[in-house]
Amino acid sequence: MGRLVMKFGGTSVADVERIRNVARHVEREVKAGHEVAVVVSAMSGQTDRLVNWCREAAAVHDAREYDAVVASGEQITAGLLAIVLQEIGIPARSWQGWQVPVLTDGVHGAARIADINAEEIKKRLEQGQVAVMAGFQGIGPDKRITTLGRGGSDTSAVALAAALEARCDIYTDVDGVYTSDPRIVDKARKLSRISYEEMLELASLGAKVLQTRSVELGMVYRVPLQVRSSFEAPDSPNQNREDGTGPGTLVCEEEQIVEQQVVSGIAYSKDEAQVSLRRVKDKPGVSASIFGPLAEAEISVDMIVQNISADGDTANLTFTLANKDLKRALDVLERERAKIGFQEMSHATGGAKVSVIGIGMRSHAGVAAKMFKALSDRGINIRAITTSEIKISVLIDAAYTELAVRALHTAYGLDAT
Amino acid sequence: MGRLVMKFGGTSVADVERIRNVARHVEREVKAGHEVAVVVSAMSGQTDRLVNWCREAAAVHDAREYDAVVASGEQITAGLLAIVLQEIGIPARSWQGWQVPVLTDGVHGAARIADINAEEIKKRLEQGQVAVMAGFQGIGPDKRITTLGRGGSDTSAVALAAALEARCDIYTDVDGVYTSDPRIVDKARKLSRISYEEMLELASLGAKVLQTRSVELGMVYRVPLQVRSSFEAPDSPNQNREDGTGPGTLVCEEEQIVEQQVVSGIAYSKDEAQVSLRRVKDKPGVSASIFGPLAEAEISVDMIVQNISADGDTANLTFTLANKDLKRALDVLERERAKIGFQEMSHATGGAKVSVIGIGMRSHAGVAAKMFKALSDRGINIRAITTSEIKISVLIDAAYTELAVRALHTAYGLDAT
Repeated sequence: MGRLVMKFGGTSVADVERIRNVARHVEREVKAGHEVAVVVSAMSGQTDRLVNWCREAAAVHDAREYDAVVASGEQITAGLLAIVLQEIGIPARSWQGWQVPVLTDGVHGAARIADINAEEIKKRLEQGQVAVMAGFQGIGPDKRITTLGRGGSDTSAVALAAALEARCDIYTDVDGVYTSDPRIVDKARKLSRISYEEMLELASLGAKVLQTRSVELGMVYRVPLQVRSSFEAPDSPNQNREDGTGPGTLVCEEEQIVEQQVVSGIAYSKDEAQVSLRRVKDKPGVSASIFGPLAEAEISVDMIVQNISADGDTANLTFTLANKDLKRALDVLERERAKIGFQEMSHATGGAKVSVIGIGMRSHAGVAAKMFKALSDRGINIRAITTSEIKISVLIDAAYTELAVRALHTAYGLDAT
Repeated sequence: MGRLVMKFGGTSVADVERIRNVARHVEREVKAGHEVAVVVSAMSGQTDRLVNWCREAAAVHDAREYDAVVASGEQITAGLLAIVLQEIGIPARSWQGWQVPVLTDGVHGAARIADINAEEIKKRLEQGQVAVMAGFQGIGPDKRITTLGRGGSDTSAVALAAALEARCDIYTDVDGVYTSDPRIVDKARKLSRISYEEMLELASLGAKVLQTRSVELGMVYRVPLQVRSSFEAPDSPNQNREDGTGPGTLVCEEEQIVEQQVVSGIAYSKDEAQVSLRRVKDKPGVSASIFGPLAEAEISVDMIVQNISADGDTANLTFTLANKDLKRALDVLERERAKIGFQEMSHATGGAKVSVIGIGMRSHAGVAAKMFKALSDRGINIRAITTSEIKISVLIDAAYTELAVRALHTAYGLDAT
C-alpha cells in the first residue's frame, strides 16, 4: 500500500461531473489502503480564459499579477474535488501552493520548485485525510504566488511525491506511453514500462504524455511514475495492479525493466525548417556568435549538425527550428553575418525529424545502421543526422514522415502481433 | 489629499473594458495627490458561477472549501486591475486577503474581520504604489481562506480604510443615497450627506447601496464613506470635490451635517407577512419561548410589537417576517404552542413596511403624528407601529405602498423642487 500521489489534468476535471469521476478513482485507492494526495490542474478552458483576460488587460504584463490571476484555476478545482470527496464520505481538504507551502524560485510565470514542506500534509495523510493540492503553483521568496509554466501540474505532482516518498500516478486522456503515435502507426503497442531516460527523450520530442521537467524530477528523486487513463472506469478490475502490468505505463529505472528492448519507441515531429551556413570560419566562439543572438530573439533551435567543409579550413553548419521562426532567424543571422563570418546561407522548409529512442542502444551495435537501411530501402533521403546516447534523429522530407515511422516501427520489431 | 480607499463592486469590474474604466478613476485620484488603495469585488457573474459549482459538487458542502473556491473571484479582479494600472503607468500590486493579511474569525462563509495588518501596504502607499486588495476575503485562525459573506467587499474596504486611517469611496451603480426609491418617487432627491445612523437604518431596510456591516464599521472607526457612481466619466469635472457637494453622498457623523433635516428618507419593504398571537401569558421568558425556536429554524423576524391585552393579564404580540417563511413559522409556533401558552394565532400576508428615518426626530416632536396624519388623510390603515430613536415604521396593506411613500415624501418636505 503506502503513499500515493494521483495527478489529474484539465480534461479529467473539465466539469463537476468529471470531478466526481476523479473522486471515484481516489476512493478506489483509499479503499485499497493507500494514503492519498491528489494534485489537480485547472478545469479545461479555465486557464485559457484567465490568460486571455491578462492579455486583454495588457499585451505585456507583470508576471507576478499574471500568476495571481492564473493560479486561481487550480485553486477552484482543488476546492471542488475536496467537496466531492467529502460528499462520498472521504475526509479531504484542499491545499493551495502557499498553504503547503510549495516553495519556488522567484521566476514568475515559469518558476522552479525549490522545496516542498510536506510535514503537515504527511501528518494529515497518516490520520486518513486525503490532501488535494492545487497544481502548477507555489510561493516565491517575495511571498507572492508563482506558477510553474504550462503543464506544471505534472511537476507539482512529482515534486509532492518526492517530498512524500510516494509513487505518482499521472492520470491523463491517454492510457499509457506507446511505441509510436497510434494515429499513424496501426501496430503501435502500449509499453508496460519505460525508463526515465527514454521518457525524457520522448517528452522533449513533443510526446504530450508527460511534461519534460516532471520526468527529470522523477528521475532525480527516483519517483516511480505511472501514466494511466482517467477515463477508464474507476471500478474496472484492471485498475489495482501495481506490478507494471496494470492499465498504464510505468516510468521507472532501467534496472526495473526486465525485458529491455533495444529500441522502445519511434517519435517524430513535422514542421521543421532547416538553415545551413556554409564555410563558417572554424574558430572558437563561432557557435556562440550564431546561437547567442537566436536565443536572445527567443528562437528555439532543435537539431544542430556541424561538419568540416571540403576545404578543411571552414565548417558547414546546419540546424533546424520551427517553420514559424524561420523568417526571424534568417533576419537575425543576416544582421550578424559579419560577426559570424559565413559565406553562404541556405534554408529549406518542409522537413520532419524522425527519432528512434532506446536505452538498449547503448550496448547494441548496428542500431543506426538498421535505421539508415530501413529508410534507404523506402527511398527516403536523409538531410541531417544527430545522435545522443539513447536516440538517433534524422531530418527527412516531411512528406515521407508516416512512411518512415511505420518502416522503423517494423524494422525494430515493435509491431504488435 | 491624504489616503483614500476606493471600492468597486462586481458590475463596475464586469469585464476588462470596465476594469480599464476603474483604472481611470484610480488614475484621477493618484494624480490629485492621494495615496490610493483599491478594493475590488469579483467580476459580476463570476461569484455566481463559483457558488453554483460548489452546489453542484454537493448540496451541503464544507464552508472552508467553499471559501477557497469562491475567494478566487476577487483574486482575479485584483490581478487584472493591477495589470491595467501598470499599463497606464501607475505602479500597482495586487494583495490577496492572506497576503495583507486580513485576519478574520474562523466562521467560514460569513467571517468577521478581526484585524488588518496594513503596515506593509502603508509603506508601499508612501512609496507611491497603489494597493489593489481582493475584497470579501481574509484568512482565519486555521490559516485557511475565509470569506465575509455576500457583499463583504464593502466591509473589506471600510476595514482597510480604518486600518489606513483613510477615507473610503464606495463606487457603485447608483450615484448616491436618495431620500427614497427613485423608481417610485419621481421627486426623490440625492442626499449630499447622511449620518451613519440613518444609513444603517436604510441599509437594514434593504437599501442595497451599502452593506449593513460596512456602515457599522464606518461608524465605529469614524471612516468617512462616500457613495458614488463608477459609471460617471472618470474625468468629469464633478469628480474631485471632497466637500460633500461632490457627485455622491457622504456618510458621516451627525455633527458634520450642517443643515440637518428632521427626516432624511423614506424606505419601504413589501413582501411582509404578519403573525399575531393573542392572549399570550405575560410572564418572564415568554418572548424567548417564541423567538428562540424561530431563530433556530433560521427564520428572520422583522418588526415586533407587543401590547397588553384587554383583560390586562395577558399580552398580544404581533411580528412580521418574509412571506416565504410564513408557513414554516406557523408550523414552529404550532409545535411550541403548549410551551408558549397563547390562546389564538392569526396571520396575514400582503403587508408592507414603510419607514421614515431621520436623526433629527430625536429633537423634534410631532414627527410620528405627522406620519399618521399623512397616511390617514389617504385612507391608509395602519396594522402595526414600531419606533426606534431615529425611525418610525408602520405596517400597512402592500397595495398602498407607493401611495404611502409618496405622501410621506411630500409631507416631510423631501420633494425636489
